[in-house]
Amino acid sequence: MLYIIGIGLNDPKDISLKGLEAVKKCEEIYLENYTSKLACSVKDLEKLYGKKIILAERSLVEENFGEIIDKAKTKDIALLIIGDALSATTHIEIFKQAKEKQVECNIIHNASVLTAVGITGLQLYNFGKTTSIPFPEDNFNPETAYDVIKQNNDLHTLCLLDLRPSKDKFMTIKQAIEILLEIEAKKGEKIITEETLVIGCAKLGSEQPIIKQGKVKDIVKQDFKQPPFCLIIPGKLHFVEEEVIKFYMI
Amino acid sequence: MLYIIGIGLNDPKDISLKGLEAVKKCEEIYLENYTSKLACSVKDLEKLYGKKIILAERSLVEENFGEIIDKAKTKDIALLIIGDALSATTHIEIFKQAKEKQVECNIIHNASVLTAVGITGLQLYNFGKTTSIPFPEDNFNPETAYDVIKQNNDLHTLCLLDLRPSKDKFMTIKQAIEILLEIEAKKGEKIITEETLVIGCAKLGSEQPIIKQGKVKDIVKQDFKQPPFCLIIPGKLHFVEEEVIKFYMI
Repeated sequence: MLYIIGIGLNDPKDISLKGLEAVKKCEEIYLENYTSKLACSVKDLEKLYGKKIILAERSLVEENFGEIIDKAKTKDIALLIIGDALSATTHIEIFKQAKEKQVECNIIHNASVLTAVGITGLQLYNFGKTTSIPFPEDNFNPETAYDVIKQNNDLHTLCLLDLRPSKDKFMTIKQAIEILLEIEAKKGEKIITEETLVIGCAKLGSEQPIIKQGKVKDIVKQDFKQPPFCLIIPGKLHFVEEEVIKFYMI
Repeated sequence: MLYIIGIGLNDPKDISLKGLEAVKKCEEIYLENYTSKLACSVKDLEKLYGKKIILAERSLVEENFGEIIDKAKTKDIALLIIGDALSATTHIEIFKQAKEKQVECNIIHNASVLTAVGITGLQLYNFGKTTSIPFPEDNFNPETAYDVIKQNNDLHTLCLLDLRPSKDKFMTIKQAIEILLEIEAKKGEKIITEETLVIGCAKLGSEQPIIKQGKVKDIVKQDFKQPPFCLIIPGKLHFVEEEVIKFYMI
């Protein structure tokens, strides 16, 4: 059996009882650790789970996971995913491979940043498409996020910010805003300006998330301390949403 | 302290270790039990949690929760929410009241149907706005869901189906499709027809979810067994999405 287990957003105790039971009976346990970041160490997880964890880097997950799936034909294997189990393309790809190989799969869900943003007071039903903002590279400066914000129109846009946990590199909210403002300067469609209301978030899903709301020109000056970070561009606000986000005004 | 605790989608073991620790130290524990439905009984929850649970019906949650929030000034009180903690307007409203009353709030997240749909193979990033389909009533036959599907255009639409758990009444996928087809008959914009590809889901988040993919005319004939149900109208499909949803073809 291949268990794909969401372990939540922050620390060892975010795993569900069902998830922990599954981990305890698995012979091999992998942690996908390049698409997100917990606030604890792998050792902390190992201690609580009572199991050795093998780190699964991008190359293992995206190129060589087939061998591990094959092992799951005769052994119980767990793949731990930060957040929910099947929120990213990579994880769905593994689920697909397992199904193709007719390996039994058990998916154990958990919290995801996609719903943890509910703590901002913005209604999840009022979000449009989620987008991500990648680190700019030579010849790779996509304008996708800007276009998604535009298309979402009256709906809120959640922007997930790029990260390289192995290099301890996390796009900050300031960097994300600067990227959007650069695209704005190029396209000039007034989708995001110095005056646009935005909400910056850090460590959603933890007991001490940092959530700050204000104009772009003010939010860029804020310190959001620890990653992971995300940025929300609210669309049209319902009055209850307005009332809740007031608590986060800088 | 007021703990608002997501308890996941299916059974007692879906709670996180952190959630269970919080429940165990609370003096009063309420379960909001009218916006969703677990596969287990309240007794099953009580047994695992080792605590008495007070059922919180709509009137208590929406009209009289202020008194309970007041008690949380001096006592540890838990409000248990099926799914994630702050995914519905009602729960955000309670969070807002607690903040207004300066009652400390601890939000413990969990799995939500909004990300559990990842198991269908559809990318969460390719979903547009989520909508819901209410039971038709005299003078209340909203066309919102139809309009949302239309506006979502190339993006996938998750339709949550109405339910009255206390009356054991759950909108089926067949009923939801019939409601959409009625709106189609009136508006005639070819948003949903007999030939439209849809995905019906039951018991997402459980170990045995039922997921079936096919044309509207064929899906209406399927038995999805047990609630809760939801209906997805896929937008434009990426090839990986196409490959995964094939597994669910009827």
